[in-house]
Amino acid sequence: MTDAAIISIGNELISGHVLNSNSSYIADILNRYGIRVRLIITVGDDSKQIIDVLENLNQHIKIVLITGGLGPTHDDLTVPALAEFFRTKLIFKKEIADNIATRFTLRGLEMPEVNLKQAYIPQNAQILNNPVGSAPGLKIEHDGRIYYVMPGVPAEMQAIMEKVILPEFDSIGKQNILKKIIHVTGLPESQIYTLLKDWIKQHPSIEVAFLPQTTHIDVALTISDHDEIAQLDDYIKHITAILGRNIYGYDDDNLESVIARLLFEKHLTLAVAESCTGGLIASRLTDIPGSSAYFKSGIIAYSNSTKIKLLGVKREIIANFGAVSSEVAGQMAEQVRAISGCDIGLSSTGIAGPSGGSEEKPVGLVWIGISDKNGSRSFSHNFAGNRLTNKLRFSQAALNHLRLALIEDFSK
Amino acid sequence: MTDAAIISIGNELISGHVLNSNSSYIADILNRYGIRVRLIITVGDDSKQIIDVLENLNQHIKIVLITGGLGPTHDDLTVPALAEFFRTKLIFKKEIADNIATRFTLRGLEMPEVNLKQAYIPQNAQILNNPVGSAPGLKIEHDGRIYYVMPGVPAEMQAIMEKVILPEFDSIGKQNILKKIIHVTGLPESQIYTLLKDWIKQHPSIEVAFLPQTTHIDVALTISDHDEIAQLDDYIKHITAILGRNIYGYDDDNLESVIARLLFEKHLTLAVAESCTGGLIASRLTDIPGSSAYFKSGIIAYSNSTKIKLLGVKREIIANFGAVSSEVAGQMAEQVRAISGCDIGLSSTGIAGPSGGSEEKPVGLVWIGISDKNGSRSFSHNFAGNRLTNKLRFSQAALNHLRLALIEDFSK
Repeated sequence: MTDAAIISIGNELISGHVLNSNSSYIADILNRYGIRVRLIITVGDDSKQIIDVLENLNQHIKIVLITGGLGPTHDDLTVPALAEFFRTKLIFKKEIADNIATRFTLRGLEMPEVNLKQAYIPQNAQILNNPVGSAPGLKIEHDGRIYYVMPGVPAEMQAIMEKVILPEFDSIGKQNILKKIIHVTGLPESQIYTLLKDWIKQHPSIEVAFLPQTTHIDVALTISDHDEIAQLDDYIKHITAILGRNIYGYDDDNLESVIARLLFEKHLTLAVAESCTGGLIASRLTDIPGSSAYFKSGIIAYSNSTKIKLLGVKREIIANFGAVSSEVAGQMAEQVRAISGCDIGLSSTGIAGPSGGSEEKPVGLVWIGISDKNGSRSFSHNFAGNRLTNKLRFSQAALNHLRLALIEDFSK
Repeated sequence: MTDAAIISIGNELISGHVLNSNSSYIADILNRYGIRVRLIITVGDDSKQIIDVLENLNQHIKIVLITGGLGPTHDDLTVPALAEFFRTKLIFKKEIADNIATRFTLRGLEMPEVNLKQAYIPQNAQILNNPVGSAPGLKIEHDGRIYYVMPGVPAEMQAIMEKVILPEFDSIGKQNILKKIIHVTGLPESQIYTLLKDWIKQHPSIEVAFLPQTTHIDVALTISDHDEIAQLDDYIKHITAILGRNIYGYDDDNLESVIARLLFEKHLTLAVAESCTGGLIASRLTDIPGSSAYFKSGIIAYSNSTKIKLLGVKREIIANFGAVSSEVAGQMAEQVRAISGCDIGLSSTGIAGPSGGSEEKPVGLVWIGISDKNGSRSFSHNFAGNRLTNKLRFSQAALNHLRLALIEDFSK
């Protein structure tokens, strides 16, 4: 298996100002291609440090993917550092300059002179076409190793990876490695591990990782053994039998895409009434292309008077039970279903925090309501996060109850 | 200035399954403390690789922060790797085991036996209390260097950083380094750079970085010179005069927190009517603690019939101009303001994609409507992202128009 390293360059990364999402993207793709990422290194826009890292890479690394520092500004130093590392000089490429000028013209802008800097590349580099930005990618073969250099802007890096670099990897020797992710919600990590422990022991050649996320746990299987790959379906069946409905999806699935499939299949429509989640449930549902086919309306009732006026929740129910209650969650779901004429109403009312909690109803408490042809019911959960993680977990709980209702109530 | 390195350990990181947000968080804090992060290294749960990285750290690195691989499962190998690197043995700590058992009891669960593994630590390590999870942090002093080891779960790592490690840094020698971030929207990076170029040249001791984000550009100033720090206010005034209202905030500000401040100050209330953003505008507004003081209601009108029935948009206006039009955006804003009784109505209607575009109204087109005491008006923008980045940029455009309206229409 070919070993690779990823080097991310940028003061914004080393200062913590920006998340290094590029290296995750690249690592994920390389893994799928059977290229094993051994190391991800992040350094600042600092020639000496860049060269130091390049010089200290272990011999067994055969592919190096470098991102960042190709921009037009004074702190973009990757290209001169590479020239120094390879002991070569920078040469001007008119084709790059022309391409940049054209991009500005198309947007009705004049090219600032600083962009010309991007037309200089190391003499031993090949240009990799950048379909969506001004800085080209570079490819350098040196001493039995291939270096790919890409801009740090994610859309540009991804375009060069997909259009130019990945097709080359097919020839480098893509191997048959299978990675399967199982998404689990509602069980703690150590319980999932305990449930799966025997199975893991029986399959030592399968790499099993437990990946806790804010809203769920991912169980990742990496299988490189040919015979094991052939049995994947049986393995998944076995694990599904153990973890049951706590598994909501696999691989690229997320809860909203799983729900989308269920609603499509069953030709059902949905409306939401949100209080504490403030639009997040609707926003997640509408992240899915084509969601307008099943998602029709949402009412965000962030005040009691909106719950009464827009949703028609009864004033005395709020007075008697409080806005965060089983009764209000149920009514919100019922009412938004009635008002919208949809098949299902889903609601949330809770306390995201940091303030607004009481001993009886602490921050982190949420009631989820569901209304459908079988009537309405509510469910409560207690979470212990900050405002943003609570909102996320509230929305996850709501969507998960919706998923279970779709499976259980609409099974035919 | 003290030099530091961050080592993140986890197969989920090296495989690209999970974003390495921990290292950004740690790097950001260290920078504020005047500790310079030179290197962020990510490796898998692989003892040999962990030890290799530790052995190859440059001598000038005096602080090493390690996260991940402290969990209870079979792929958590950080602690034994550390013991091997330090040539010491693992010892059982009853206090850790008791603490873990108590945590499970409080949640009404029995401790799975696998969690006992977390009670073994290298003999030369000190325990750092973990206020929110079962795996303790560790501190090891060795050969003129301090190693801090923390769990990979972000909430646990952050709690240990804030409660235990940061107070120690004060004594290590916190230095006076000032970092100022200026958030700019509505201008491309090279234009901002061109506008600021002369100023940058005049202040060579100030580090200026341009950080393109999905919805805006950040300009980051890092100032370590004492005399320059004293003049920061003048510098900011100067830069603000150059970039004008394209600057919407500084440092920890985001567009929603800036809007929150403006609405609080002016005692105004807000309602939103969303189509293409599907709840994202409301969700961003309600990310702010205390947002219920100004944000009252939202209507997500994802279908034409919802626009007509729930919002009261006139059927013939949709028929004549289309749902994505200046007229419909204006009516949505007007209607949600009237229905909710709020001071301001904000709306969005557009085409997030990937389908639904036409030559006349392409994917990426959005109309934003604002209605207030001065009447209603709409603004259009064209973006060229995928569905999710379009939704984000649509919501950013809407919130930015709201910000400008708050500054311009409600100036006293």
